Amino acid sequence: MNYYSDSINNLIEEMASLPGIGPKSAQRLAFHILNLPQSRVEHLADSIVTARKKICLCKKCFNLSDQNICPICSNPKRDASTIMVVEEASDLAAYEKTGQYHGVYHVLHGAVNPMAGIQPENIKLKELMQRLQREEVKEVIIATNSTVEGEATALWISKFVKQAGIRVTRIASGVPVGGALEFIDEMTLFRALEGRTEI
Amino acid sequence: MNYYSDSINNLIEEMASLPGIGPKSAQRLAFHILNLPQSRVEHLADSIVTARKKICLCKKCFNLSDQNICPICSNPKRDASTIMVVEEASDLAAYEKTGQYHGVYHVLHGAVNPMAGIQPENIKLKELMQRLQREEVKEVIIATNSTVEGEATALWISKFVKQAGIRVTRIASGVPVGGALEFIDEMTLFRALEGRTEI
Repeated sequence: MNYYSDSINNLIEEMASLPGIGPKSAQRLAFHILNLPQSRVEHLADSIVTARKKICLCKKCFNLSDQNICPICSNPKRDASTIMVVEEASDLAAYEKTGQYHGVYHVLHGAVNPMAGIQPENIKLKELMQRLQREEVKEVIIATNSTVEGEATALWISKFVKQAGIRVTRIASGVPVGGALEFIDEMTLFRALEGRTEI
Repeated sequence: MNYYSDSINNLIEEMASLPGIGPKSAQRLAFHILNLPQSRVEHLADSIVTARKKICLCKKCFNLSDQNICPICSNPKRDASTIMVVEEASDLAAYEKTGQYHGVYHVLHGAVNPMAGIQPENIKLKELMQRLQREEVKEVIIATNSTVEGEATALWISKFVKQAGIRVTRIASGVPVGGALEFIDEMTLFRALEGRTEI
C-alpha cells in the first residue's frame, strides 16, 4: 500500500491483525479512528494499555481481573458453595448474562487436549482440587464446552469431585431454544432424548 | 457488567464504540488484546496515537497523509495531468487496488447534500477549481458515488470543468462484473443499456 502514508498503513495493518477483522474492516476502523477527536483517540489507546498492564487472574477462581480477587468472588451475595467450572473467562460472561446463576466460578483456561499437548496439569485443575479441599463446596457444575475436549475434561473433573464426596452436575445438552428439529445434528437430538424430563 | 473488573469493562466498551463491532466482537477483541504480550499491546496503542497525531490532508489532493504532500502526489511516475475526483480518501484505495489508474486524485471529503446541510462550499470543490487554474490538467474523471448526492456533485463539477475548457468524464454505470441480470435493479440496467459500447 503505497498510496497512504506510513503511519496510516501501519494503523491499518495493526487493525487487520485483530481477530475477525478483514482488510476492508481494518481500513474502515483506521479511518474511523483518524476522524475521532485527538482526546478520544488517546483515551482509546490508554484503555488498551491500562487494561493489559493491570490484568491478572483472580486468586480464587482465575477469572481475568485487575485485582487479587475478582468482582464475583468478592461479592458477598454470591453463593460460594456452588462452583461452575468453565473453560475460558469469556464463557463466564455468557452465563452471567442469563442473570440466573448466583454461585461462583472456576476458570480452567483451556480444556484437556492431549493431541494439542494440553495435559491436565496445563490447565487450572489442580487449583480446582485445592479449592474443594479448602472451601466448603456443596456442588460443582461442569460447564465446559460440548466438544470432545470439553467432554473429556468434564469426565476428568467429575471423577475427582465425586471422590471428594461432593455433588457434581453437568449442564444439559439438547435442542437450543428456538431451534428447528430438522436442522439439528443427530448427536444433539440423541442427547436431547437421553436427557428428557417429565412434564 | 459487574463480573469483570473496571479496566476490562472499560476496554470492552471502547471496542464496542468502534464501527461494525457489536457487543460479542467487542468482548472477543478485548480478550484477544488482554492475551497479547505487553510489548505488542503498547505497539498497537502507539500506532493508534501516532497515526492520529500525525494525520493531515495532502496540500494538493486532500488525501489523508502524514506529510504535506501525499505519496501519490509526490510520485513522479504518476500522470499529474489526469485528476480523478472521489468523495472520500477510502474511495481512492479502491481504485488504487485495481492498479490500472496512473493519474492523481482529488478528495472532496463529502458530496453536495443540501438536505444534510452540505453545500458546495463545505467540500473541497473550490480547491479543485484552484487546481484546474494552477496546474496543467487535461482530464478530470469524476468518480463520486452512484448516489443522488454523488450524481448531483458530479453534475456540479462537470459544469465548471467544462467552462474551464478541460475534458471531463464520468466512470461508467452498469452491471457489476459477475452480476446476474435478474438480481440487478432497473436503474442500473437502464444505465447499462444507455452506456452500451460496440463490440
